[in-house]
Amino acid sequence: MSSRVQGREHRLSRWTAPIVWSLAALLLAGLIINGGTLDLRPQITGQPDARWAVIGVGLLAVTYAGWLIVVLLRQDSGSEDMRALSGRIQSGAQAFLRQEYRVLILFTAVVALLLALLIEPRPWVSLSYVLGTFVSAAASWIGMSVAVRANVRTARAACDRWAHALQIAFSGGAVMGFSIVGLGLVTLTLLTLIFPQSYVWLGFVFGATIVALFLRVGGGIFTKSADVGADLVGKVEASIPEDDPRNPAVIADLVGDNVGDIAGMGSDLYESYVSALVAAMVLGQLTFGFAGVITPLLLGAMGILASLIGAVFVRPPGEDGEGFEWQVHKAHQTMNRGLYVSTGVMLIGSYLVLVRLLGDFGLTLFWCVLSGLVTGFLIGPVTEYFTSEYKPVMGIARISGSGPALAIMEGLAVGKMSTVAPILIIATASVAAHHFAGLLGIAIASVGMVANLAMLLSMDCYGPITDNAAGIAQMTNLGTAVRERCESLDAVGNSTAAFGKGFAISSAALAAMAWLATYYETADITVASIADPQVIAGLFVGAMMVYLFSSLTMRGVSQGAFAIVEEVRRQFDEIRGVLQGQVDPDCVACVSLATGHSLRAMLLPGVLSCIIPLVVGIVLTPEAVAGLLLGSLLVGLPLAIMMANAGGAWDNAKKHIEAGNFGGKGSTTHKASVIADTVGDPFKDTIGPSLDILIKLVGKMAVLFSPLFTLWIWPL
Amino acid sequence: MSSRVQGREHRLSRWTAPIVWSLAALLLAGLIINGGTLDLRPQITGQPDARWAVIGVGLLAVTYAGWLIVVLLRQDSGSEDMRALSGRIQSGAQAFLRQEYRVLILFTAVVALLLALLIEPRPWVSLSYVLGTFVSAAASWIGMSVAVRANVRTARAACDRWAHALQIAFSGGAVMGFSIVGLGLVTLTLLTLIFPQSYVWLGFVFGATIVALFLRVGGGIFTKSADVGADLVGKVEASIPEDDPRNPAVIADLVGDNVGDIAGMGSDLYESYVSALVAAMVLGQLTFGFAGVITPLLLGAMGILASLIGAVFVRPPGEDGEGFEWQVHKAHQTMNRGLYVSTGVMLIGSYLVLVRLLGDFGLTLFWCVLSGLVTGFLIGPVTEYFTSEYKPVMGIARISGSGPALAIMEGLAVGKMSTVAPILIIATASVAAHHFAGLLGIAIASVGMVANLAMLLSMDCYGPITDNAAGIAQMTNLGTAVRERCESLDAVGNSTAAFGKGFAISSAALAAMAWLATYYETADITVASIADPQVIAGLFVGAMMVYLFSSLTMRGVSQGAFAIVEEVRRQFDEIRGVLQGQVDPDCVACVSLATGHSLRAMLLPGVLSCIIPLVVGIVLTPEAVAGLLLGSLLVGLPLAIMMANAGGAWDNAKKHIEAGNFGGKGSTTHKASVIADTVGDPFKDTIGPSLDILIKLVGKMAVLFSPLFTLWIWPL
Repeated sequence: MSSRVQGREHRLSRWTAPIVWSLAALLLAGLIINGGTLDLRPQITGQPDARWAVIGVGLLAVTYAGWLIVVLLRQDSGSEDMRALSGRIQSGAQAFLRQEYRVLILFTAVVALLLALLIEPRPWVSLSYVLGTFVSAAASWIGMSVAVRANVRTARAACDRWAHALQIAFSGGAVMGFSIVGLGLVTLTLLTLIFPQSYVWLGFVFGATIVALFLRVGGGIFTKSADVGADLVGKVEASIPEDDPRNPAVIADLVGDNVGDIAGMGSDLYESYVSALVAAMVLGQLTFGFAGVITPLLLGAMGILASLIGAVFVRPPGEDGEGFEWQVHKAHQTMNRGLYVSTGVMLIGSYLVLVRLLGDFGLTLFWCVLSGLVTGFLIGPVTEYFTSEYKPVMGIARISGSGPALAIMEGLAVGKMSTVAPILIIATASVAAHHFAGLLGIAIASVGMVANLAMLLSMDCYGPITDNAAGIAQMTNLGTAVRERCESLDAVGNSTAAFGKGFAISSAALAAMAWLATYYETADITVASIADPQVIAGLFVGAMMVYLFSSLTMRGVSQGAFAIVEEVRRQFDEIRGVLQGQVDPDCVACVSLATGHSLRAMLLPGVLSCIIPLVVGIVLTPEAVAGLLLGSLLVGLPLAIMMANAGGAWDNAKKHIEAGNFGGKGSTTHKASVIADTVGDPFKDTIGPSLDILIKLVGKMAVLFSPLFTLWIWPL
Repeated sequence: MSSRVQGREHRLSRWTAPIVWSLAALLLAGLIINGGTLDLRPQITGQPDARWAVIGVGLLAVTYAGWLIVVLLRQDSGSEDMRALSGRIQSGAQAFLRQEYRVLILFTAVVALLLALLIEPRPWVSLSYVLGTFVSAAASWIGMSVAVRANVRTARAACDRWAHALQIAFSGGAVMGFSIVGLGLVTLTLLTLIFPQSYVWLGFVFGATIVALFLRVGGGIFTKSADVGADLVGKVEASIPEDDPRNPAVIADLVGDNVGDIAGMGSDLYESYVSALVAAMVLGQLTFGFAGVITPLLLGAMGILASLIGAVFVRPPGEDGEGFEWQVHKAHQTMNRGLYVSTGVMLIGSYLVLVRLLGDFGLTLFWCVLSGLVTGFLIGPVTEYFTSEYKPVMGIARISGSGPALAIMEGLAVGKMSTVAPILIIATASVAAHHFAGLLGIAIASVGMVANLAMLLSMDCYGPITDNAAGIAQMTNLGTAVRERCESLDAVGNSTAAFGKGFAISSAALAAMAWLATYYETADITVASIADPQVIAGLFVGAMMVYLFSSLTMRGVSQGAFAIVEEVRRQFDEIRGVLQGQVDPDCVACVSLATGHSLRAMLLPGVLSCIIPLVVGIVLTPEAVAGLLLGSLLVGLPLAIMMANAGGAWDNAKKHIEAGNFGGKGSTTHKASVIADTVGDPFKDTIGPSLDILIKLVGKMAVLFSPLFTLWIWPL
């Protein structure tokens, strides 16, 4: 069997690289060389439209993803046991998505009807909204279906060769990354070819927003209800290890990793991506007409090319080295090489494209792109400092010796402190971008930040795949060597996830700024003074929404976990032989319990965050809505960063203690750190990330319905 | 001995009531009847100035406080044991204040020098700042010295008669309430008689702000370091009960109640009081000249009269009834009667004064006063719902059965939800007040909220006195009956404290709004648009400050508690016989450790919150400073409410479990709730309240130094 795998493994790297390379290089060269001659006014001149090149690049990304799928599915999926387990995770994840999508369809029908009635050009905004929902939902479905198949193959490959497992896990993530970005860019560009009215593009983005709401918030509540519930009743009450097959909530926990971290994270970042593009296109159209529309699309295409080239550089070492440390180090190196190459290509490429296309003003826009890119890269190390094994995390580990209460306080203090630098960085980037190119500059900075999303998303989705692989290795008894190989991959996954979370929130913040800027244009606001009580009221309502939203999602997790705990307790009590490992527990019950719960818990905050901006726009003034957008960003941004980083810090403090420091596993210090980590889990994986969605969603609601505030309601 | 006490008790009620009544009625009638004829332009007409009436009322309050002191000190202070214990608390509290004041003097010297060099009219702003510091510091000293003497007398009186103990505890609080408000109003009015320049009054307020910073933040860190440290090492590690004399940190804990809850809360609310008055006076002067200055002062005087009348209505029942429930009910009734009477008098009085003085515009201002008063009264029940034994607290108690992590999550969700209504109420009040009378209206609303502060503060300080009395009863073995009587008094103290915290934060929010309004006038800003990147940057810096400040104060508590834990462990280890109760522990060491620590932990956040607004004003624009003020309010208000209410909810969930529900004391549910409560303690008593100080401090810095931003720096 091993030779079969080896054969396919070789074919994978033998074929992928050269073809992707040559195609990407060709397109890249074409874009740069022809930049100056591509026609930005094809309607007038009749020359071929530059957007066909963008579509070409998007299709290349989709093709690459399709290819990865084919190669991946032909990898060995392991023993009967492993396939059975993987099948249960797959069916759990798909059951979750099916149920989510069923509610999503109803929700979409209502919103589509409203849009069809209210927003011009009718019914095109509504239809493009439906299309946006469909593309995002389909890409998430594909990405997740592949990811849940990649994890068992990663575990299987880890039996033979660590480097091959790394390759498979990354390829699994890359399917999500390239398919979602490619499909998004292609559809969006086609839309602009058919409809010159910006509201139609807005409809498309709004679709992505709603899917992100369902998958990120719903998925986040699902995953942490399952995780916290499984841990509380398994590790703490029944004293069985993590990922033990006797625990009925373990499958739900593994499903949750895919649902929350792959589908949720993917749809969230994808939303930031199309959202940044469209904000820049709307503002660009108002400023420069057609050239302003095509520039962001070309930057998006450049980002995909940069990601393709970067992905090819993610090549694990040819020979396996010895030991955990070596593996972690090599995996880090492999990932970082891809990231740095893609960022470098993106920088050089966008410089060339912008300067060739737009001359001096292109250079100005390049500084905006740069400030967006730099923001992402500056926030990474800050996140790392506060959440990895540096002074703050050590401090939490040390103080855990005096009990969970002090560990929690110290972690909250660390989380709060970690917001200071990111807030200043994001504020500086916004001010700088505005200085260079006004409101459009902010939108372009946000495009610069997310342009090579395909690469970033591939790295982000790699994490949960390796995490699942480690779980599968544990549950199917593949032995400690295999489990350790999977864990060394997972260790890197945790640090890419930390980077990813910092990136998700800062890109959401810049995207929110871009939508505020767009709203000023669409609602025709030039001044919204904080001496105006309406604006102040709007700011307060925005602040209130953040707390309302995060209270509801937090309660969603605590109540969901409580429900899981009670269900597992019931199974341990009522089904004989479960705890002894003689009878299989009812895992499906836990999955459907968590799914139903997360859907119910997600609906109220979701609906409220759609309705409140409308109410403010209708009852108060359009300026008050601007206040609401900024208020939710101002209050939501630090809260989201705090929660993400406090959660990460507690997690790593626990891991540091588990590595044998301050008493090691089983000590009271360790117990305290486990409690703090349990609090931190939903902080970093549900409530913090959900706020990303909120601060982006209100902006879209405001822009989309701004005609109602300015034209329909107030003149009456 | 008992008859001696009885005799004095009778004299207390026999003399106080009639004299206060007749004087108050006289002044009240005078103010109302003469309202129309009091001259608002004495410089021109040469008639007697209406401000002399205000000074008369202020002196009446001071006299009343002095009288209460004399009567209180003549009460029986109990057995040798009790006096010794009380003496240790007194000397601990005074040691803390002495050390605080020593650093405060240095700090004040630096600030006074800066003011003397920079702010016109020189050196009067600086001198009035020093005067403001002195008045606030002296009143806090007096109030606290009396309170620490009132607690042992309360415990002693509880041995004989419950109702008498209630009277003594309230009188002890009233000394703080009336002396600080009376002294403040008299000094402020005298200042306006001597200096017509508003910057001199601003200096006075700034003094109060700095004292509040030292006592509220420093005191808050002290009290919770001691409390959490004492609980962790005593109740959890050594398994000795709360308030056990063997625990060396217990005295520090009792000292902390006085330091944080009396001196801290008192100086904080006093700051809101003078701050609201002066903001209204500054805006009033700009709008109406002299009449605008005198109106807020007359409202302040009216508030004192209302409080005096209300205080006389706080009369415990003549006969003691049986049982804990009866006592709690009666104590509630007694307190509420005082509160309602004073509020009623305040409403009617301010209506008459405003309408007689200012005619139609007076009526407009009355609506502003009303919206301020209503705000305070609406937020009370919201706080009560989320922190007393209603659904949210029950939910926390119930979920504690699944461990501390879920209890903490649920509590955070409850705390966040509890911010929604208060934010909307405060925003509505601001908009309403602005609608009635523009920026001045917001300031007048904030005056309306705090005008009868003397009464509210008396009720707030009653709480820690009864809490200490219960501690003394426990530590000197006065028996369960006495302890229970003290605890029934304390139960009411907890609910007045919850009201007080809601009141403190909402009055701080309105005061902050008033200072933002004042800043617009002094910095001559008419528009500060949230489309201006400078304003956005300012808003972000304000948001950042809140997180920085609360991270530093939080860390102050966790590190302070850790230091106390290590000191107590050391004493248990090194001093033989401490744990057996044979040797007295070294309580002084704990007090001075906590004092030194709290001072160090307070300085950095204090200095930063003074400097950052200046830096923003100098580096960015005056409009950015307006952004900073609003940003810190927007982010700080919900965070402060969340922390205060989550803390209160955990506290009462624990108490509910201790009352025998969900497993009762000693169960795992109880243990989980104790951990959550330990996290919540600094939430509600340190970090939340400290944010009140921050959001008020930045406003004062901005107004005071606005000449530098507008005149000195930018024209260069």
